[in-house]
Amino acid sequence: MRSPQQLHNGNRSPQEHHHPPRFHSTVAEHKLRRFNSLILLFRLVSFSFSLASSVFMLTNTHDSASPKWYHYDTFRFVLAANAIVAVYSLFELGASVWEISRGATLFPEVLQVWFDFGHDQVFAYLLLSASAAGTSTVRTLRDAGDACTASNSFCVQSDIAIALGYGAFVFLGFTSLLSGFRVVCFIINGSRFHL
Amino acid sequence: MRSPQQLHNGNRSPQEHHHPPRFHSTVAEHKLRRFNSLILLFRLVSFSFSLASSVFMLTNTHDSASPKWYHYDTFRFVLAANAIVAVYSLFELGASVWEISRGATLFPEVLQVWFDFGHDQVFAYLLLSASAAGTSTVRTLRDAGDACTASNSFCVQSDIAIALGYGAFVFLGFTSLLSGFRVVCFIINGSRFHL
Repeated sequence: MRSPQQLHNGNRSPQEHHHPPRFHSTVAEHKLRRFNSLILLFRLVSFSFSLASSVFMLTNTHDSASPKWYHYDTFRFVLAANAIVAVYSLFELGASVWEISRGATLFPEVLQVWFDFGHDQVFAYLLLSASAAGTSTVRTLRDAGDACTASNSFCVQSDIAIALGYGAFVFLGFTSLLSGFRVVCFIINGSRFHL
Repeated sequence: MRSPQQLHNGNRSPQEHHHPPRFHSTVAEHKLRRFNSLILLFRLVSFSFSLASSVFMLTNTHDSASPKWYHYDTFRFVLAANAIVAVYSLFELGASVWEISRGATLFPEVLQVWFDFGHDQVFAYLLLSASAAGTSTVRTLRDAGDACTASNSFCVQSDIAIALGYGAFVFLGFTSLLSGFRVVCFIINGSRFHL
């Protein structure tokens, strides 16, 4: 259980030697698989939420009389943040599937763990600030009254897009905890696995 | 270098046995002291920024004609978030000084590392969302024009308070990285030290 280097090599060896030395326990292998699958699941949910949020915000133009999303700075910010997170999550989904199927990271390991963690952190903060700014703008629109009473569906659809953005943020935040765990494992053990 | 349990016991022993067995290297001890001092420094800066932000927002009432901060939901949110972070940072400053001076954590170790990390994370997100919402409101006030032209000092002082809140967020975010590092060390090694 306490030999990370063995596990690390054991996990990487299948595509390097083509005759895997199976000396690591099945319990440890099972745990590693579950950890990677959890990251994959969180990334998938985060991708779905951010993509849905982008689409909801982008299609938020009802008729010529209603206000447009691109007239508001914060709504443009919400769309941009969600679109960035959707593209990033899609890329990371590919990298995660690659890692699970081949047993090795897409980039060199040291680069991969720092890349994942850094982007998860920054994009989680980006998404939260966009959603908070968007919430503030929608509240202002409702209080001022003229935009939301003239076209209520505009405000409702903005609410939905922002709420989906919060959902994407929550799962991206969970992912950043897991990828942060991998970074510290890498710093301490020289491997992204803690077992 | 790779014996966390020894170091862990060595570091806790002074107040337990009163005759510390000094078998850990001075290099490791120096690194641990530097790590804790860095956390203390970040907490001090974070406390200063959030306290200053609270004071700036709280005193943002110039004359009877100018708008008041408590008329705006988001400005109340900014004040509340910064006040919470200031109180929390003050408490954590005390806990950090206690840990450096006595060599043991204030709470039991497992509770302390999770308490620090959890609160750092949540309060960093809280502070960022408050600052982003505040920024959005100030922008709206400037665009609408009537509030900021009537009393420009109100908007400028709000800007300063929000900017100080961003400063507190940055240092709280750094602190959450360090306390997250301690959590993972605790999970892997059974000690908050990685050496």
